[in-house]
Amino acid sequence: MSTSSARKTKPAARKLTKEELVAKAQKPSEDAMKLHPFYMGKVEVSPKCCVRDFDDFAVWYSPGVAAVCKDIHKNPAKVFEHTNKANMVAVVSDGTRVLGLGDIGPEAAIPVMEGKGLLFKYLGGVDAFPICLNTKDPDEIIRTVEVLQPCFGGINLEDISQPKCFYILDELRKRCSIPVWHDDQQGTATVCLAGLLNALKIVGKRIEDVKIVLFGAGAANIRIGTVYMAAGAKPGNLIYVDSKGTLHKGRFDLKDHREKWRMCQHTNQNDVRGGVAEALRGADVLSAASTPGPDTIKKEFLGEMAKDAVVFLTANPIPEMWPWDAKEMGARIVGTGRSDFPNQVNNSLGFPGIFRGTLDVHAKTITDEMCIAAAQELAKCAQDKGISEDYIIPKMDEPEVFAREAVAVGMKAIEQGIAQRPMSREALYKLASLTIDRARKETQLKMKAGIIAAPPK
Amino acid sequence: MSTSSARKTKPAARKLTKEELVAKAQKPSEDAMKLHPFYMGKVEVSPKCCVRDFDDFAVWYSPGVAAVCKDIHKNPAKVFEHTNKANMVAVVSDGTRVLGLGDIGPEAAIPVMEGKGLLFKYLGGVDAFPICLNTKDPDEIIRTVEVLQPCFGGINLEDISQPKCFYILDELRKRCSIPVWHDDQQGTATVCLAGLLNALKIVGKRIEDVKIVLFGAGAANIRIGTVYMAAGAKPGNLIYVDSKGTLHKGRFDLKDHREKWRMCQHTNQNDVRGGVAEALRGADVLSAASTPGPDTIKKEFLGEMAKDAVVFLTANPIPEMWPWDAKEMGARIVGTGRSDFPNQVNNSLGFPGIFRGTLDVHAKTITDEMCIAAAQELAKCAQDKGISEDYIIPKMDEPEVFAREAVAVGMKAIEQGIAQRPMSREALYKLASLTIDRARKETQLKMKAGIIAAPPK
Repeated sequence: MSTSSARKTKPAARKLTKEELVAKAQKPSEDAMKLHPFYMGKVEVSPKCCVRDFDDFAVWYSPGVAAVCKDIHKNPAKVFEHTNKANMVAVVSDGTRVLGLGDIGPEAAIPVMEGKGLLFKYLGGVDAFPICLNTKDPDEIIRTVEVLQPCFGGINLEDISQPKCFYILDELRKRCSIPVWHDDQQGTATVCLAGLLNALKIVGKRIEDVKIVLFGAGAANIRIGTVYMAAGAKPGNLIYVDSKGTLHKGRFDLKDHREKWRMCQHTNQNDVRGGVAEALRGADVLSAASTPGPDTIKKEFLGEMAKDAVVFLTANPIPEMWPWDAKEMGARIVGTGRSDFPNQVNNSLGFPGIFRGTLDVHAKTITDEMCIAAAQELAKCAQDKGISEDYIIPKMDEPEVFAREAVAVGMKAIEQGIAQRPMSREALYKLASLTIDRARKETQLKMKAGIIAAPPK
Repeated sequence: MSTSSARKTKPAARKLTKEELVAKAQKPSEDAMKLHPFYMGKVEVSPKCCVRDFDDFAVWYSPGVAAVCKDIHKNPAKVFEHTNKANMVAVVSDGTRVLGLGDIGPEAAIPVMEGKGLLFKYLGGVDAFPICLNTKDPDEIIRTVEVLQPCFGGINLEDISQPKCFYILDELRKRCSIPVWHDDQQGTATVCLAGLLNALKIVGKRIEDVKIVLFGAGAANIRIGTVYMAAGAKPGNLIYVDSKGTLHKGRFDLKDHREKWRMCQHTNQNDVRGGVAEALRGADVLSAASTPGPDTIKKEFLGEMAKDAVVFLTANPIPEMWPWDAKEMGARIVGTGRSDFPNQVNNSLGFPGIFRGTLDVHAKTITDEMCIAAAQELAKCAQDKGISEDYIIPKMDEPEVFAREAVAVGMKAIEQGIAQRPMSREALYKLASLTIDRARKETQLKMKAGIIAAPPK
């Protein structure tokens, strides 16, 4: 695979019109409609062990396998040696909030979960299997995942609507003996924090001092704010804005929404009331995770932000406002979710490396501290290449990023005493690198040999 | 892979003692204990689509994937085109009856389910994923499987204790929109029928006429008898024997066991009472599926069987009696579950081809008629090579067997009007052959390139 250096320094496409950009965003959709039926699936189940001849089946299956079963029965921890549990993650969704498409159901969610499986393997060497559930009931989702644990070393929740996603994550983290992660919350937050750390470094501000406006109070931004705070941001310096305006102690309409109500109590110390315009006055950072734009946030509102403002506009496929509009209004650093603008804040930078590290050390859970360690390492990866206003975060095609992230996460788990298989930094880096490298080689090998056919012209 | 022709004509190992045979049966166990920790899993999740460069992720994941999701949401049947659902089977167990080991729990069952996944892929090109459930409650198992349907095109139940396995299978077949199969019942029955058809051909008896003793009244034999009857055996000519003796109308101790009680009512028309000795008087066939021997059935009892008796001793790893003892007592044809004796009655000959055909035509269910068609085709495969007393059933290493079986199963589904994707016999054969061939090539490719490492010396 070429590392497509052209994309690393691709300048902001300032001259494209909205129509041109929408058209450009359509290209992947057109390709997707052609290529999905060609391949009929993006992940498959593949042998992981040798099959020298048919006698090997007596080792892998009856009668030989019985000895291994008995060994696990006797020593439950051996399941991590005798099976693929240690590297297996379930990508679980009920299809109630798929991408920006809403509740389209579990069948229509499969292409996303298979895609996630592909990214997990290719970027992190993790075996991630799509599990789409034909139920929307939170308690039934929780119980199903609980019951599914034996074959898996981790759970990745995905595209589950809020507020139930918070409850589901919290309950599962309590009940499960393996790490449970909600990528829309924790993954996105990790990558945003990485970008924020480097952006603040460039503008010379400290996270402890900055005023941050979180535009959108969905699952992603609730967690993003939480992680910003865990990384040092002052709760009082945060202001959330949802569709009805700023979150403050008087927002009694949110009393039944546990997470948002908590933010009403602990953020916005100056009790700013009003909309995004009021919230943005004097703010250093705008971190938007809301609905596709480009008119979700009016450019005029940015005029009253502080000097050297940092603006993340993460809605897909069209950011909440065009990045050049944000720049025109004085923002110094702008990040979006798109690969064709600089500073792509993309959660694919997070989960593959974070799970790699978590699985490699058999961590019992994924703590906020592990997420922060991942964000700091991501920030460092970019620093090592040289950060600038147009490069605050690594790109997906920088292969060493995921192994470095895995090491940071695994070492933090060891430090926190939650790693069941501690090892040295060097051993961890070697393991993670080899596993990721193997996954990429396997894909390329299958393509070269025609096991994965070449796409139609 | 070599087709190991040495094994095709391996003679009965008459001179090995019990101790030597037990020792021989230990070899796969020893290898299993070494090789399982070396590979840490027998199946993995692997990319099925091209990854030419990182731009492809915009097609396989956000933003491109959204178009595909919307398409499925609008046209639910498209899930079979846009995803791997059509080739994906869940291998589901609660670990309550694993091999002959009993209730060892879901974690200890994983090596068997992974092994099944390996066989499914290597022999049938089917993507079969292990799902071990941390619950023993039949209704919770049923509900969990029901909820898991979206990503799967079929369900393979495995190693679930009886009697709940009957209830679970029946309920799931009613409730699910995809085929549900219990391999310990239907798979074993299919392969036994294949062996029986050829054995009777050799001895010149008709299935309609023969007296059959079913030794053991577990899930396997209950289904084996049912399939024998569906294939022409007269219910009255069957006699079941369980640990308390023959099944007959007076076995009120079995009144609460729906399946066994049904057999009490419909089989054993001469009301034979007593044990296996009484049952075997004048019997043409002994079909044993009970507990490991070699002393489970005393050889003396076989002395009163009819001339040209056919005897299947399927317990693993040691058959209910040694095959040479059965021969000594006059049995003309003897089959066992072992690969080192002639006539291996092995359910690995069934499920890969049966699911291949079922999935390829999108059959709504797997009927008894489809199983019988599979058995007849297996019998024919052996006939085409030339059947004999020592070769009544194909071997696993005859690659064309599985594609032929798939065709027989698929064509029967089409004939029965339950195929949602009917096609010609030729198209079906081509599709099945290519899919199976691809799976074997993939494995060999991964081994050759070292993606699957060579086993330690």
